[in-house]
Amino acid sequence: MNFLEERIVKDGVVKKGNVLKVDSFLNHQMDIELFDKMGEEFKRRFANENINKIVTIEASGIGIACIVARHFGVPVVFAKKSQSINIDGDVYIAEVESFTHKCKNQVIVSKKFLSADDHVLLIDDFLANGYALQGLISIVQQAGGTVEGIGIAIEKGFQYGGRTIRNLGYHLESLAIVDGMDPETGEVIFREQ
Amino acid sequence: MNFLEERIVKDGVVKKGNVLKVDSFLNHQMDIELFDKMGEEFKRRFANENINKIVTIEASGIGIACIVARHFGVPVVFAKKSQSINIDGDVYIAEVESFTHKCKNQVIVSKKFLSADDHVLLIDDFLANGYALQGLISIVQQAGGTVEGIGIAIEKGFQYGGRTIRNLGYHLESLAIVDGMDPETGEVIFREQ
Repeated sequence: MNFLEERIVKDGVVKKGNVLKVDSFLNHQMDIELFDKMGEEFKRRFANENINKIVTIEASGIGIACIVARHFGVPVVFAKKSQSINIDGDVYIAEVESFTHKCKNQVIVSKKFLSADDHVLLIDDFLANGYALQGLISIVQQAGGTVEGIGIAIEKGFQYGGRTIRNLGYHLESLAIVDGMDPETGEVIFREQ
Repeated sequence: MNFLEERIVKDGVVKKGNVLKVDSFLNHQMDIELFDKMGEEFKRRFANENINKIVTIEASGIGIACIVARHFGVPVVFAKKSQSINIDGDVYIAEVESFTHKCKNQVIVSKKFLSADDHVLLIDDFLANGYALQGLISIVQQAGGTVEGIGIAIEKGFQYGGRTIRNLGYHLESLAIVDGMDPETGEVIFREQ
């Protein structure tokens, strides 16, 4: 088990409905030392990619993306989930369904901050059905940029998001892939990587 | 001028209605090196405070809070803006009005992540009327914790939020206090600190 899998076993909580709660260290309270290790590991896994920008989606992707960005020496752009009066009209938009909130969001990035010159590493905390990620990929493509890699903290391997993204040929690295969970025993089964 | 004021003059855009757009480096695209300098500066300004947790509010506070947290060696908790099915019922709640979105939000922190043992540094990108900050203060108080300090990137000095917070006796440090803006010339007037 790697450092993230160990942490999930120690502090993750399995709930009914395939919910894995990691809010004590990943997406409500955030362990910055852990994020730093994740940054180190992503830098190792994407050592051969030429990356000049990290793109993520609000809210829980932002903290990880910022700490990871230190290891790449690049800025972060976060996609916003609803139209704001502080965003100019000139934006890239993708429609995204949320597994957590059971609703549709528009995901928005200002055209000022993504262009054909951008070689992007996408970062997010979770990958399940992959809708959020597909929205981010769509936005980078609208800009004419290149998705050089995708770094995920926790992938739910029993949902189809990761498989779809890999089938499309993207270089996807998930630090922990959960293939099964048992809400009775709390057991989490990780995929061998 | 300090490093943040210089950056605001260089890359900030003054719009009508007292809007200062800093989305190229602060709250849409994020300059991680700049955030690192902000972390260094907050560490200097709060050197005498005993801080064991940073609390911020989604979304644009999270990136700054995470990079600042590295300088304090503490975890970050971010307050969420609406009830999510992934948050347990046991939460602290405050009502917050948003200047940007002209609506009311509930700001929520799980009771698991704030307690009477917590000595909190609040971090946010903007302080204008102070409603978001008042919500965060209320939540730390509900937990019985102590607000040891408040670190803000940009304070709009011509709105009353900062004055109110200082009158209440909090140790508030804003890296840039904007006392006036001219949308015609683009000029930004900073308060001497």
